[in-house]
Amino acid sequence: MKKIYLDNVSATKILPEVRQVILPYIENDFGNPSCVHEWGDVAKQGIEKARFQVAQLIGGKPDEIIFTGSGTESNNFAIKGLTLAQQKKGKHIIISAIEHFSVMHSAKTLEKWGFEISLVPVDKYGLVDPEEVHRRIREDTILVSILHANSEVGTIEPIEQISRITKESEVIFHTDAIATAGTIPINVQKLGVDALSLSGNQFYGPKGAGALWLRQGVRIIPLLDGGTQEGGRRAGTENVPAIVGLGKAAEMASESMAPRIEHVVNLRDRLLSEIPSTIDHVVITGHPQHRLPGNASFCIEFIEGEAMLLLLNIKGVAVTSGSACTSRALKASHVLIAMGIPHAVAQGSLLFGLGIDNSIEDVNYLLNVLPPIVERLRQMSPLYSKFLKGGK
Amino acid sequence: MKKIYLDNVSATKILPEVRQVILPYIENDFGNPSCVHEWGDVAKQGIEKARFQVAQLIGGKPDEIIFTGSGTESNNFAIKGLTLAQQKKGKHIIISAIEHFSVMHSAKTLEKWGFEISLVPVDKYGLVDPEEVHRRIREDTILVSILHANSEVGTIEPIEQISRITKESEVIFHTDAIATAGTIPINVQKLGVDALSLSGNQFYGPKGAGALWLRQGVRIIPLLDGGTQEGGRRAGTENVPAIVGLGKAAEMASESMAPRIEHVVNLRDRLLSEIPSTIDHVVITGHPQHRLPGNASFCIEFIEGEAMLLLLNIKGVAVTSGSACTSRALKASHVLIAMGIPHAVAQGSLLFGLGIDNSIEDVNYLLNVLPPIVERLRQMSPLYSKFLKGGK
Repeated sequence: MKKIYLDNVSATKILPEVRQVILPYIENDFGNPSCVHEWGDVAKQGIEKARFQVAQLIGGKPDEIIFTGSGTESNNFAIKGLTLAQQKKGKHIIISAIEHFSVMHSAKTLEKWGFEISLVPVDKYGLVDPEEVHRRIREDTILVSILHANSEVGTIEPIEQISRITKESEVIFHTDAIATAGTIPINVQKLGVDALSLSGNQFYGPKGAGALWLRQGVRIIPLLDGGTQEGGRRAGTENVPAIVGLGKAAEMASESMAPRIEHVVNLRDRLLSEIPSTIDHVVITGHPQHRLPGNASFCIEFIEGEAMLLLLNIKGVAVTSGSACTSRALKASHVLIAMGIPHAVAQGSLLFGLGIDNSIEDVNYLLNVLPPIVERLRQMSPLYSKFLKGGK
Repeated sequence: MKKIYLDNVSATKILPEVRQVILPYIENDFGNPSCVHEWGDVAKQGIEKARFQVAQLIGGKPDEIIFTGSGTESNNFAIKGLTLAQQKKGKHIIISAIEHFSVMHSAKTLEKWGFEISLVPVDKYGLVDPEEVHRRIREDTILVSILHANSEVGTIEPIEQISRITKESEVIFHTDAIATAGTIPINVQKLGVDALSLSGNQFYGPKGAGALWLRQGVRIIPLLDGGTQEGGRRAGTENVPAIVGLGKAAEMASESMAPRIEHVVNLRDRLLSEIPSTIDHVVITGHPQHRLPGNASFCIEFIEGEAMLLLLNIKGVAVTSGSACTSRALKASHVLIAMGIPHAVAQGSLLFGLGIDNSIEDVNYLLNVLPPIVERLRQMSPLYSKFLKGGK
């Protein structure tokens, strides 16, 4: 059977070139970068090269890159570490209503610790209005965190406009760029942010390595205490193989971003135009223009997303119904709800993450197998029969 | 030139069998374990197998294993997470004076948050007296954390005796077993602890994966908030390749522990007997009997440990002068100071971590090159000339 992976939003396949740079570090170059000997030096050189490569990808300085173990760690580190570093100045934080849970739940933890959180709403496309951020900034606001793009619906947020506001108000601004770094061009100077989270496994790098870019001079409290790694800001023996892989993936993303974007946009646009025209009662979620190149997301009414995933899996197609981090939890996405999509409709969410390995044949195969699956599931849906009887 | 790695305390070389199980996960089995499709299932099966293997290594249940990104993360998670989960019961924590910095500095962070820390002293061998723990337990004590063994001096602590005391007092007991898990037999039931940290790169597994074993029913507050991975206790996409590698390394350690111990003890004992007999003014650090099989640690008087490392490196020999996490920081070890070793002597610490790849030839080579290096450095030492003139 044909096997088609259309879930590049949950995990991407490591590029062969990235795997090649990883291999020596799981063989002979196994040293600890903190050690004063040849093995240590080789490992240290590996991570410093990666630091440069990651900095290049986003227009930062190598010293401003702090390696972490995952995008989730980067977000936890940013939200908790930047807040705790500034708690004498105030206790108020602003985030959007559609943040990833690693930001959202970090903020909830801070709430338990006595901080106050304001949620910025989004419009029906998942877009944050900068003015809504402005309106919430107070004397005691110490951190604004708005994601660069939401991976579930693909909407890219107006970070540049928001950063003009935070700069004016002298509030630290963090953006979760896990869905965008390595995928669309990013320059931290142009974005105007103070901190930015990224993760290698979103752009064909390995799992186990993320980074927090932190503008020089911005204070942060470590999340992981211990040794003096990462300039004393993140303790623990560095995951050298994953870090060098992240570096290589960053370098390759920098070099081939334009053709990659072109490739996935073509596939994405075919899905965005074909699915609603071949299946009834389909809503495209996310913004029509300000959209991640590889993201095609929908809500298919009268259907449970999970059921679609299972039937698609039987046909060899891997997709997801929302954030991978919660997809085994079977709850309607807080992102879709925040966009005003009714609960029942949000249950039918279906998310395609198109990647550089995907072809037009993959998309065509999907377009063939999806409609009968939807039809079959709807025939079993009491809501759908009710609707057909005019009882909606 | 001969190249000899005698620093298995800072990092170990991944076993070929471990590398073999890692490889598929950095190739085709790249899925996200949270995803409801074939790629996700394969990844999920990988980490669940590893969970079983790690549980087997220490006599725990698979459900009690929480995977982390490093030993440092496991220790931070345990110290902060167990303390915060119990803060309504009290504000007092007990740790030993020779904990790894990931425990020590986590405790210092808690001190800043209003908790009170008591340090348990050690004797000249680095041994904790259980009675000294007992004496410090109060009504408001919520956590005792004593390391299983100190990797710098090799001393193995009387955890079983300490756990009898903590059980009687109904205080949660965590042990940092990063230096012992996979190296000497461990059974969490026999040790009587409630939580135990371990790390794969201490026993020929990969970097990037550690674990916290947490006895069923013990509450902990997550360090990383976000998705529902690891039973909601540690968010973030799992580092699948590193976790499956940790699992395989655990399985192999279980199977071949006895011959491994015999092998490294032979090499260790040769160093422990030969170095003090061929070089003057050498102190063996750590306990003569209760000692990690691969640990041979010394203080060589009138010498800076770092200088020795550099000259040994020129001769192709990799060793360390203390904890890798601080070896670029050039400070006298808090462990040696706590054992009552004078600062000047502690500066000359030299630590051999013997591993399964080492041979008697490696040890003999080291025994040949070390004395002239010591001699040369002492000739440059003002302290040594002063001593020779009887002015010590």
